[in-house]
Amino acid sequence: MPRTPDELRAVVEGYLAELGLTPELGSLDAPMRHALSGGGKRVRPVLCLATGEAVGADVDRLLPAAAAVELVHSFSLVHDDLPALDDDEERRGRPSVWAAFGEATAILAGDALLAEALRLALAYPETAVARELTEATLGMIGGQQLDLEGGHDLEQLHRLKTGALFNASIMCGIWAAGVPVDEHPPWRAFAGELGLLFQVVDDILDGDGYVLEVGADGARRLADEAAERAQERLGAIEGDTSVLEEIVAGLAARTS
Amino acid sequence: MPRTPDELRAVVEGYLAELGLTPELGSLDAPMRHALSGGGKRVRPVLCLATGEAVGADVDRLLPAAAAVELVHSFSLVHDDLPALDDDEERRGRPSVWAAFGEATAILAGDALLAEALRLALAYPETAVARELTEATLGMIGGQQLDLEGGHDLEQLHRLKTGALFNASIMCGIWAAGVPVDEHPPWRAFAGELGLLFQVVDDILDGDGYVLEVGADGARRLADEAAERAQERLGAIEGDTSVLEEIVAGLAARTS
Repeated sequence: MPRTPDELRAVVEGYLAELGLTPELGSLDAPMRHALSGGGKRVRPVLCLATGEAVGADVDRLLPAAAAVELVHSFSLVHDDLPALDDDEERRGRPSVWAAFGEATAILAGDALLAEALRLALAYPETAVARELTEATLGMIGGQQLDLEGGHDLEQLHRLKTGALFNASIMCGIWAAGVPVDEHPPWRAFAGELGLLFQVVDDILDGDGYVLEVGADGARRLADEAAERAQERLGAIEGDTSVLEEIVAGLAARTS
Repeated sequence: MPRTPDELRAVVEGYLAELGLTPELGSLDAPMRHALSGGGKRVRPVLCLATGEAVGADVDRLLPAAAAVELVHSFSLVHDDLPALDDDEERRGRPSVWAAFGEATAILAGDALLAEALRLALAYPETAVARELTEATLGMIGGQQLDLEGGHDLEQLHRLKTGALFNASIMCGIWAAGVPVDEHPPWRAFAGELGLLFQVVDDILDGDGYVLEVGADGARRLADEAAERAQERLGAIEGDTSVLEEIVAGLAARTS
């Protein structure tokens, strides 16, 4: 029996809680762990693990890649919350890193989370996981800058800001599992639908983005269509994709 | 004839000027190029090239590693200059990135420089260059945090804040050149002396750090001894280390 999404999430939480950070980071340990322990949904690392398990890889082999994706996500939140960017003093009901530890330390803690993510991705003998993650990070940073500027095409913005790291969550699982490159295209297509689904549902829950562009009903339809295409993609892939199907259904139906 | 340090610097400048940045970074291109084109001495990438050439590697093979080291250095300057850290509006007689482009963009441009550095380091088929650079980056960030906190042992602070990336400049050249691991120790020892030399001379020029700790004469003696040990290390290494010897002499005698 493959692990359920909740079981995978527990595995991720355990790994992150035990994760050894580079000793030379010294007192950055506390703000980094604060950022990492906020009780998020861990959607990205769970997707990474579920993808790797779907193609038969052992979870231990997948965990560094899954954690690396989560650390990149965490880095982006720490920097986004800074006063110069979104100026958020709270994240998930707790003080954001800069509010708790000061701005200077938050900048450095974010930098360190990104570098630690790469260190994890470089635990593999091949460069592929690290390359996938680095390219996604560059796309995500470009998306942040687009967002700062405002006035850009929503699809392009989301493709970079959210989609790039969603893609990497799937593809890092695929690389870590050692899937040959000629079997990657359907996974990339699946990842693209999933990123869109996640973002449209986010917009429905927040009443912004796609909701402002196509209305609430239109956004719901976009989400349902993306979920349907994601399920179709999974149906055409060899392997036990039942857990991923459950995750897609959960993402389409989520209310928070 | 091996290239002189000035010739190597020209090669680095040419490569950086032509460097293609990830297109998705969009308008971050301008602040990143502003940061990269400040007319620094390029000590680190020149060291990387000179090291690789000393062991017979082709400069084209070394350039991505050399540029990656310079991008990490540049990332660290962009974030250090931020108002929350050193609050420097100027760097080398020009506006710092945040002063020219705003704080939010400077944070993202620094992030992007780090990620681009890793992308360059990941252009090699093996993970070694990227691992060396990532570990140095983590050490450097830890050094920044120590500096923020104040009151720490100067040697530890410098070993991290300056030494880690100096080490990586040498060792990325060694990895990129394909030198077998059992021949690395003398190079690491050389790199350690060089980092110390650079920092002590910096302190002599700025009248702080080691000068406050051991006086101007004491600092000069430390610098000369580090230069001497660095030259001895080079003397014991097989390969044409003449250009590196010239760089060591130049670092010991520099006045800016």
